[in-house]
Amino acid sequence: MTQKHSHRFADLCSHRIQLDDPPVELDFSLAQLHDSAIAAGEGSMQIALAAMNRLDAGAVANLDEGRMVGHYWLRAPYLAPTPAIQDEIVATIARIEAFAQGVFEGRIAAPGGTRFDRLVLCGIGGSALGTMLLGDAFSGRDARALLLCVLDNTDPDGIDREFGKLGSLRSTLVLVVSKSGGTPETRNGMLETRRAFAAQGLEFGPQAVAITTSGSALDAIAKREGFLDVFPMWDWVGGRTSITSAVGLLPGALLGMDLRAFLAGAAAMDAQSRSPELRQNPAAMLALVWREQGKGRGERAMVVLPYKDRLALLSRYLQQLVMESLGKKLDRAGREVFQGLSVFGNKGSTDQHAYVQQLRDGRHDFFATFVRVLRDREGTAFEVEPGVTTGDYLDGFCLGTRAALHDSGRASVTITLEAVDERSLGAIVALFERAVGIYAELVDVNAYHQPGVEAGKKAAALVLTRQQRLAAALSSAGRTTEELAAAAKEDPADCWPILCHLAANGRARRIGEPDPRTARFAKA
Amino acid sequence: MTQKHSHRFADLCSHRIQLDDPPVELDFSLAQLHDSAIAAGEGSMQIALAAMNRLDAGAVANLDEGRMVGHYWLRAPYLAPTPAIQDEIVATIARIEAFAQGVFEGRIAAPGGTRFDRLVLCGIGGSALGTMLLGDAFSGRDARALLLCVLDNTDPDGIDREFGKLGSLRSTLVLVVSKSGGTPETRNGMLETRRAFAAQGLEFGPQAVAITTSGSALDAIAKREGFLDVFPMWDWVGGRTSITSAVGLLPGALLGMDLRAFLAGAAAMDAQSRSPELRQNPAAMLALVWREQGKGRGERAMVVLPYKDRLALLSRYLQQLVMESLGKKLDRAGREVFQGLSVFGNKGSTDQHAYVQQLRDGRHDFFATFVRVLRDREGTAFEVEPGVTTGDYLDGFCLGTRAALHDSGRASVTITLEAVDERSLGAIVALFERAVGIYAELVDVNAYHQPGVEAGKKAAALVLTRQQRLAAALSSAGRTTEELAAAAKEDPADCWPILCHLAANGRARRIGEPDPRTARFAKA
Repeated sequence: MTQKHSHRFADLCSHRIQLDDPPVELDFSLAQLHDSAIAAGEGSMQIALAAMNRLDAGAVANLDEGRMVGHYWLRAPYLAPTPAIQDEIVATIARIEAFAQGVFEGRIAAPGGTRFDRLVLCGIGGSALGTMLLGDAFSGRDARALLLCVLDNTDPDGIDREFGKLGSLRSTLVLVVSKSGGTPETRNGMLETRRAFAAQGLEFGPQAVAITTSGSALDAIAKREGFLDVFPMWDWVGGRTSITSAVGLLPGALLGMDLRAFLAGAAAMDAQSRSPELRQNPAAMLALVWREQGKGRGERAMVVLPYKDRLALLSRYLQQLVMESLGKKLDRAGREVFQGLSVFGNKGSTDQHAYVQQLRDGRHDFFATFVRVLRDREGTAFEVEPGVTTGDYLDGFCLGTRAALHDSGRASVTITLEAVDERSLGAIVALFERAVGIYAELVDVNAYHQPGVEAGKKAAALVLTRQQRLAAALSSAGRTTEELAAAAKEDPADCWPILCHLAANGRARRIGEPDPRTARFAKA
Repeated sequence: MTQKHSHRFADLCSHRIQLDDPPVELDFSLAQLHDSAIAAGEGSMQIALAAMNRLDAGAVANLDEGRMVGHYWLRAPYLAPTPAIQDEIVATIARIEAFAQGVFEGRIAAPGGTRFDRLVLCGIGGSALGTMLLGDAFSGRDARALLLCVLDNTDPDGIDREFGKLGSLRSTLVLVVSKSGGTPETRNGMLETRRAFAAQGLEFGPQAVAITTSGSALDAIAKREGFLDVFPMWDWVGGRTSITSAVGLLPGALLGMDLRAFLAGAAAMDAQSRSPELRQNPAAMLALVWREQGKGRGERAMVVLPYKDRLALLSRYLQQLVMESLGKKLDRAGREVFQGLSVFGNKGSTDQHAYVQQLRDGRHDFFATFVRVLRDREGTAFEVEPGVTTGDYLDGFCLGTRAALHDSGRASVTITLEAVDERSLGAIVALFERAVGIYAELVDVNAYHQPGVEAGKKAAALVLTRQQRLAAALSSAGRTTEELAAAAKEDPADCWPILCHLAANGRARRIGEPDPRTARFAKA
């Protein structure tokens, strides 16, 4: 054994955090996090951890919206700042369990007593990605689980396709998830679903459930239309950190997840990530890696590579959690910082035949997060060669790729799970939630608002108004884009794509070639 | 109308390329491609286009492997340099059509005459992503189409899950796609599939088809086991550009795609992208945007945002095509350049509730590629508000987000399709294939090899050898990681994760806590 070798083992032992329950290992030994950087980070990190403690205690951290940040209470209700909040968390969990049990036992059923066996989720972003992750991670394990179908967009063809697959909606439970009820994609998905129910002569309300803020527009609809039940969203839980609220737990339970185990796993990681000892604090170490790798400006992307098919959606889940939290124009003092941390990935070893070529040989603009799962399969192992199983290849590709990246100077973090179970996934979710919170403290951005999403809604509303004006300006004889734009008091550059869209859907008639200078548009 | 307004419309008209058939519009007016940059690019671009012409004529461009680059011939066989190649292309297309027709009509069927209605694809990377894209884009349109199930990994649990969903394999056609037959993930997927067939008392060969190089290991297996048929892969077609070869066409046809239309769409874009007039050459313009945005070094990522559920896999497809082609350590002169161009994305408007917050407000390290689809749905439009449909919202979000990015100085390209049909998707695929080829010429890298993928296989093989040595060194009493490493002549840092994996799968027994310093491992 050479000196270099023993050095690597020593590095492993001293840059490794092991959780007992769930058994999760975090290996930072290939993360290029030198002792000097850890020592240098001590001061700022203790300030960040103190801020996280204040969050836990109920500080108003989302200043824009004047809200507390309480997703950590969801798995440790005793931390919540008031008994009322504590009670609400505890009671909601019990209600969710009872509801799922009622559905499984057929006590909560569609009109006529039909047992629910499908779940249509109307939700987007934080109201859908968590459920999709849980559904994929735990699918096929509980025979009582409902079959999941997600409407996470306002694409009419996409919606038609999902309903085409479902066929009869008689045994379909619909879950509408929207904090305000005002998210257009979710509202449109709900309206389309209600239309599909009506087309089959079914009543929507008795097969629908909502998760929303008390008193919201959606809450009012749920009451008016006689929804089966309404579960709460609280203003102290943000969408992208709502997976341990009803938003994740209710569909999770209906998909067969053990929600108490999921919460316990998250709580365990939270607890470990409150440690003031940096080297034993997984979230702090992760945040430190992010800062070192990206120089505190996100200069390197995080590539998430779980070597397990069930975790293929983890990167998309983390992409939202990280990028929506950290991608901010202003720091908390109002200075323009244009922060962010890009996240992408899919699954290994599949991606080794896609973009890993660039990771290995190309631009050094990323660091990797590997997720290994030790247990290969439930059934008997299968040797594809003497002494070598299908799963050995999977882990071999993971370790081999990690070693090759290390050899070419690319950093990585490795998270090793015993199995893809509720406790482990809860722990991973909490790890990244807290790492995001800590990193945001380090780089001084508000991780809890999303001004760009609101701005996006406004920009779309403007397009819709413009479309209405153009539709009104259409004549029988037809006018050019510039003429219509002048009539609608708009820029013709903005009008051309809208007119093309109207024409393609039979709501205007295009006369002439598709050329913005010459084509004319008339009433359909 | 202000001066600024008319300027924007003039920009649109002069930075816009319209294909007639298929009707595809490429809008470069928001790509920040100034006239001066187009003029300055003229010289290098003409050299690049000349090199593309040499490719078309049969030049050996993949120097590492001494191979021609012929994927453009697949949709224009008359371009192929020899009559033999021309004939092979034409004959293979006819064979594919006949095979799919035979399957649909039940003439080609499982033993006992069972009509095939499911398709299991064993393939990875270029042998799977194209089919997944086609399957998703065209699903639900042809009642005769087979149901697709993809085994694109060597994850035993993932494979179990797919077979669990399939149930009986009696009506399952298996397609094994591997150029050499030596790709371990694909081989393992095939072996697992054969095992699943055997477990159901079914013979594998009579339900299997291969796509592989004549004389490969897989070809030999197919002959030995009596596969239904074997379709060719040619050494002049790379995996990531094989979607217009049998690799994409055969499964595409079985999934209900009109393959002639797909080829025609690709051919039309190829033809347009041979234009020496830059402003009318879509692929050249796109390559120029890439160079301008990333300073010829890939400094900005390409975010691909199709506003259509059916195109959600486009970004993953392009991620492989672009990153595996351009992510290279050396240029063609052998200099270290660490090139690349990162690609990620999923779909709009869904992603507006995920990472678009960062795109709008955060780091300026990307440019966007929007894909719009004008036709909303097959059936009747649904107004969610008076005069406003579900699809209007989708297009409104697309145009609104594009405008907002433009306002904050972020560049974008917009590709507008009439519909998601075979011709349009063929055109898009060809557009990016040629843009990659042209860009590689501009930055002087070999776009047609993938040395890092080979290196990845070698690194994994090393791990498997190490595992065998460690398994052999296990004793009944148990030894520490360091003791086992010494016995196997390995670094203990490399041994610890392998020992944990063996222990988790009952092939070693861990004694003591999971601590690399103290845990001991014994024979199971």
